[in-house]
Amino acid sequence: MKIISINAGSSSLKFSLFDMKDEHVIASGLFERIGIEGSNYTIKFNGEKITQEIELSTHVDAVNILLDKLTDLNIISSLDEIDGVGHRIVQGKDLFQESVIVTDEVMEKLEEIKGFAPLHNPANMLGIEAFRKVLPNVPMVAVFDTAFHQTMDKTTYLYPVPYSWYEDYGVRKYGAHGTSHRYITETVKKILGREAFRLISCHIGNGGSITAIKDGVCVDTSMGFTPLAGIMMGTRSGDIDPSVIPYVMEKEGKNASEVIDDLNKRSGLFGMSEYSSDMRDIVEQCDMQNEKCLVARQKYVRRIVDYIAQYYVLLGGADVIVFTAGVGENSVPVRREICEKLACLGVKIDLDLNNQRGEITKISTEDSSIAVYIIPTDEELMIARDTLHLIHR
Amino acid sequence: MKIISINAGSSSLKFSLFDMKDEHVIASGLFERIGIEGSNYTIKFNGEKITQEIELSTHVDAVNILLDKLTDLNIISSLDEIDGVGHRIVQGKDLFQESVIVTDEVMEKLEEIKGFAPLHNPANMLGIEAFRKVLPNVPMVAVFDTAFHQTMDKTTYLYPVPYSWYEDYGVRKYGAHGTSHRYITETVKKILGREAFRLISCHIGNGGSITAIKDGVCVDTSMGFTPLAGIMMGTRSGDIDPSVIPYVMEKEGKNASEVIDDLNKRSGLFGMSEYSSDMRDIVEQCDMQNEKCLVARQKYVRRIVDYIAQYYVLLGGADVIVFTAGVGENSVPVRREICEKLACLGVKIDLDLNNQRGEITKISTEDSSIAVYIIPTDEELMIARDTLHLIHR
Repeated sequence: MKIISINAGSSSLKFSLFDMKDEHVIASGLFERIGIEGSNYTIKFNGEKITQEIELSTHVDAVNILLDKLTDLNIISSLDEIDGVGHRIVQGKDLFQESVIVTDEVMEKLEEIKGFAPLHNPANMLGIEAFRKVLPNVPMVAVFDTAFHQTMDKTTYLYPVPYSWYEDYGVRKYGAHGTSHRYITETVKKILGREAFRLISCHIGNGGSITAIKDGVCVDTSMGFTPLAGIMMGTRSGDIDPSVIPYVMEKEGKNASEVIDDLNKRSGLFGMSEYSSDMRDIVEQCDMQNEKCLVARQKYVRRIVDYIAQYYVLLGGADVIVFTAGVGENSVPVRREICEKLACLGVKIDLDLNNQRGEITKISTEDSSIAVYIIPTDEELMIARDTLHLIHR
Repeated sequence: MKIISINAGSSSLKFSLFDMKDEHVIASGLFERIGIEGSNYTIKFNGEKITQEIELSTHVDAVNILLDKLTDLNIISSLDEIDGVGHRIVQGKDLFQESVIVTDEVMEKLEEIKGFAPLHNPANMLGIEAFRKVLPNVPMVAVFDTAFHQTMDKTTYLYPVPYSWYEDYGVRKYGAHGTSHRYITETVKKILGREAFRLISCHIGNGGSITAIKDGVCVDTSMGFTPLAGIMMGTRSGDIDPSVIPYVMEKEGKNASEVIDDLNKRSGLFGMSEYSSDMRDIVEQCDMQNEKCLVARQKYVRRIVDYIAQYYVLLGGADVIVFTAGVGENSVPVRREICEKLACLGVKIDLDLNNQRGEITKISTEDSSIAVYIIPTDEELMIARDTLHLIHR
């Protein structure tokens, strides 16, 4: 069984081809600058890497070339080997509680809600449409970043704002990174060998969110109506006093969307440090006592600790904390600083075990009240698993 | 020693006259609708209450009448008995770390920063100016709602936004209710008979804020750049995803200030319940299974618990939690629900002891890991104490 996992952007298409017998990646790659001058693709397989500049006017062009290459390079012997294609969809609103096989009805619903994630959903849909055109007989599956968070209760997902904003316009917490948090949950289930546990999943990369999970089900998550909310990120502010918006609008002669754009693209680590959105750069600068970088790093750690603390109490205690994504999997000092601040909850990590990157590792000591793990996330695999599961049902 | 404590609004003037020998209130009252038709005043003393409609064109009129009445009614025998007047000022920015004797230089600084709290500071200044005119030889003291929070460190008070917003426009966390949180801190010092303790002070009234205090000093507080941030309040949303603002602007054809106005005046308990901003009404409706009121009440409790959890970890544990202000002092069920959710931190309250309103009461059990108190706040007394302290220095 071979499954392609797709993440389509407005001018890009990222793919991974899985052999689901052992869940290994046969090939992966990226088509870039679709519809823009200088379009190109990269395909990795068997330790090799092929890159080529080629005209890609539409996503259909990219899919055609991808499928040609898969056979030309003998990665697969025929297109019949492709059993299904799974597509990442950023926003499923409350219409999608789980992954679904794509039908015309699903496409209609996606059309309906695309204004909710105007930068992402239409691009995700382009990917589905292109594959449906080229592989009309292969089942397509839609996997939603928001679906895992649909188990939040009303008290959690509603904001304390006029109720009509929810009823009339859908203003509520939707969350994001659900596919990653679900992958982490599944992995913890396997590690612990049981279904019942209280988990705080920390997906901290360039974007970042923390999710509270009880017995496999999402109870709360730090992202909100959009991925701007929650913890501090690479370029996003996370939670701030909303009154800042009209104040800065007036000071800088901007409109509200421009200030929100500043909060999405010029805030977070980047805004505070005035140096970089990348934690590796920040840590390097901290070693040189760059004051703004030091404050930015401390703030970043503080906001994560704040959410872990909230979710610890919300869950009535925690059994497992997981670090995943770019910073979570790789930043030894950030993990250490977070865990040090959790000492009053009984968290203890082993500094040697923490000196690890990108591998499943238990970094807490035996006497830690909460088990702490590094678990590399794999959203592509989760998408492929859902696809396999649905086409077999 | 007699001190007057003043809280001046744009069309009102609230006063309390203290005898500082035993800190008791000799008289108190309110001048309303200054400069508006139907102006009137109320003075309470000796168990009596006098109310009169009278023309009050300016705050100076109100002060003149107040002082006349104090002598006419034999509350004091002469104006010479008034040793000082303390004034509440909402916003002191980072220019005022503590209360100060009002000088021309202080008035200039207040003039400079008044745009930072345009609804409150100019009104507070009207009060000072009126008293300076009528009692030119009596020392005036300015007491700032923000001063207690000036001990927050940079990591805490900066937002993860472009650094220039802080440097150029003063965007940072200032907090509010500082005079109340300081009063609570002083009271806990007396109760415990020591200076070193970790305190979480929950001022929850129509407005509300939670403050983390270590060894008498504010470490963090839930209000931010303005009093909109933090926990959910009577009509204020507290923290929400800032992206909601441009979204609602577009949906309702409003500008940013109008949406912020919705978040300040039509959100919180009122917005979610579509019934009332008053917790007493909400609790009553919950008894009748009003679903929106039930969700609003749960959300209200959740946001408070979220902040207590954050501050517990920030302080590395807590010795004391205090409930104060309208809801904190009086709502038996809200205190109970908050404390129940804190059970995983070892908080235990005695339901009989909790069945108390408006009196200093320890409501936690002997084996609770954190002592929990009800302490009625008294901002007026705190202002009078500061005034006495400064004129004696």
